[in-house]
Amino acid sequence: MQTLQEFSFSKRFPDLPLISAATAEKYPDLIPLSFGYPARESFDIALLAQSSVMALETQGPESLEYTGGTGTGKVVEWIKQRSLLRSIKTESSNIIVTTGSMQGMDIVTRTLTDPGDEVWIEAPSFFGAIRQFLLAGTKLRTFPIDENGLKVDLVEQALKEARASGEPLPKMFYVMPNYHNPGGINLSLERRKKLAELAYEYNFYILEDDAYVELSFTGKYIPSIYSFGPERVIYLSTFSKIIAPGIRMGWAIAGEHVINKMRMLKSDGSTSVFVQEIISNFLSEIDFDAHVKKLNSIYKMRKDAMVLAIAEYFGDEVSYIVPDGGFFLWLTFHPEIDTSQFFIDSLKKGVNYIDGVHFYTENHQHNHIRLCFTFCDEEQIRRAVKRIAESYFENKKNCSVLKEV
Amino acid sequence: MQTLQEFSFSKRFPDLPLISAATAEKYPDLIPLSFGYPARESFDIALLAQSSVMALETQGPESLEYTGGTGTGKVVEWIKQRSLLRSIKTESSNIIVTTGSMQGMDIVTRTLTDPGDEVWIEAPSFFGAIRQFLLAGTKLRTFPIDENGLKVDLVEQALKEARASGEPLPKMFYVMPNYHNPGGINLSLERRKKLAELAYEYNFYILEDDAYVELSFTGKYIPSIYSFGPERVIYLSTFSKIIAPGIRMGWAIAGEHVINKMRMLKSDGSTSVFVQEIISNFLSEIDFDAHVKKLNSIYKMRKDAMVLAIAEYFGDEVSYIVPDGGFFLWLTFHPEIDTSQFFIDSLKKGVNYIDGVHFYTENHQHNHIRLCFTFCDEEQIRRAVKRIAESYFENKKNCSVLKEV
Repeated sequence: MQTLQEFSFSKRFPDLPLISAATAEKYPDLIPLSFGYPARESFDIALLAQSSVMALETQGPESLEYTGGTGTGKVVEWIKQRSLLRSIKTESSNIIVTTGSMQGMDIVTRTLTDPGDEVWIEAPSFFGAIRQFLLAGTKLRTFPIDENGLKVDLVEQALKEARASGEPLPKMFYVMPNYHNPGGINLSLERRKKLAELAYEYNFYILEDDAYVELSFTGKYIPSIYSFGPERVIYLSTFSKIIAPGIRMGWAIAGEHVINKMRMLKSDGSTSVFVQEIISNFLSEIDFDAHVKKLNSIYKMRKDAMVLAIAEYFGDEVSYIVPDGGFFLWLTFHPEIDTSQFFIDSLKKGVNYIDGVHFYTENHQHNHIRLCFTFCDEEQIRRAVKRIAESYFENKKNCSVLKEV
Repeated sequence: MQTLQEFSFSKRFPDLPLISAATAEKYPDLIPLSFGYPARESFDIALLAQSSVMALETQGPESLEYTGGTGTGKVVEWIKQRSLLRSIKTESSNIIVTTGSMQGMDIVTRTLTDPGDEVWIEAPSFFGAIRQFLLAGTKLRTFPIDENGLKVDLVEQALKEARASGEPLPKMFYVMPNYHNPGGINLSLERRKKLAELAYEYNFYILEDDAYVELSFTGKYIPSIYSFGPERVIYLSTFSKIIAPGIRMGWAIAGEHVINKMRMLKSDGSTSVFVQEIISNFLSEIDFDAHVKKLNSIYKMRKDAMVLAIAEYFGDEVSYIVPDGGFFLWLTFHPEIDTSQFFIDSLKKGVNYIDGVHFYTENHQHNHIRLCFTFCDEEQIRRAVKRIAESYFENKKNCSVLKEV
């Protein structure tokens, strides 16, 4: 028998706290307000089955053989057409189909940065994105958001100062313009324009993560950041929220030279042409606008139920901006409250959500929680919010960060 | 309008020559002996359609919702059972389903290495793997193969010398033990054992790429390298060659702590649970041994046809080892022949293959070509080999590297 020496794995793995929802395994029968799952009622199983059979019968041998590329290219054509609604006029050569949005983030980050480069992000920001950026060895710097999204004035000031003092400028700025995760807010038109200008002036790329754009309860849209700076913006979106997460399909739009580099890093060859053909059949058959309208009517009702329950059970103890789309409600407690102190008790009472701390990388803010309102029905949402409120009030006296100081 | 400054992309992109087959677009109606595609006749379209409908009807909502994990876990169970044939006894926690083998290579490389670390490989080796290793910023060192595979004695000598002189030791050795791509040879039992021993002694991991293991014309198998060193081997295989490449599904077997790290780098979340369920239904329904037997009987006939045609059209001009499995025949020309000199003419004559230079990273060898015998039927193979021979003989006088010296 050989002796086993210690092996030095890559240094790239960040030492991040476990997402709190991951600790939920011990507590079965939780009402899940944690991950951003769409409503199961929104899946058109019958049409997906029909689309699968059609894909196999008509494009079977080709789609099963083909390990790279776009198959018939119908999905890319659909993306091209749909992008016009975001004021994005683009060509097929500017589009790459990705195996979910997260893969897009991974390959964009590795395309634009080397380890040690700066990536600037919002605070709070999506924990999955934060993880990708850290795995790529980049350094993060954060900027606050308000009710109009990222505070671009602070970004401008930081860029000026960095340039003046010879500090590193960012290679990339990661931003969620619509129905921010977790903040629920939208980036204003003026700030979009200004951020695009800054990208040209200070020579960085904006990674515009637009996963929730279709989930608008008002039907109104602000033009994408991409439309104001196509040479310095990479736009990401996904079918996860509008068809199903399990199909693992999203896309990126960028300059052709960027797309070509991204293809080299796409180690799954291409996103399964077999699945691409299923989705293109699905999109050909479905009345997509009606489908999105139906989703939004379900989600608006659930959001309303959550807001009502929060008002009823939390009273003045929390503040929040009521989102007009997306998946999440972001609750802010009084500044001295440490929400982690009632998280486990909430699990015990039968409800699951994501503690706010996971959306920060530095100067951790401890007085937020994120609730997903799309997966559970109104009755579950009401019960879940009641349980969280009970945990909060029962533990409130132990939740103050002040007592420890 | 903003002025556009030059942007410095990541330094990770290697300056590799285009794979010659990629230049084939100008020449339609080629007989393709280039990429390692399985026979289309081998796809069981009807059973895949049935499996898709079954997956949607029985596991639909769950598999469509679920973005991480293994679904019902039936694919992993199948892998576990099948691995026993490779002398691998393993647990589900040692297995990760990947979106094709290439994704496995990518995440293994980034798990084990940082940029600048050494990866040692065979020469020749698979161009797709070489690309992954360079994209991860590793340094490559190559070792020759002979009719018994990798010359492990030379590896041992290099390890000894590196240790003695304080030169860097490898973090990983990438090796293809069965039906080597492109060499077609198998690594002998003794060399497998010895290589595993060296991995313990010099503290590196072996990346055992076993994509072709099922494609045995003899039905005989040598135990995997993994079976001799489970703590220092990561084993990769794939459904690409035995079900279809377009489904994009493979797997890795390794120590649980390695698998857990790999999961963090798997930016597609998990390989589509929707597709995993389709494949698990497929595997439940099919007589897999009969299926593999059928594949091998088709491929053996095609290999025989290729060998016959080469003997007839090339005579003594080339040498090769007749593979007893896999996908490829590796032709070696006289040392002074530069095969790139008749590649374009072969394309013009209507045949496509991969020039040998792409399987090397240093000290390019220029007198090989790789032919895939699985995709085309016997008649096409015969015509294709005839065309290559014609190109060769017509250009032979211009193919000598000596004339240029």
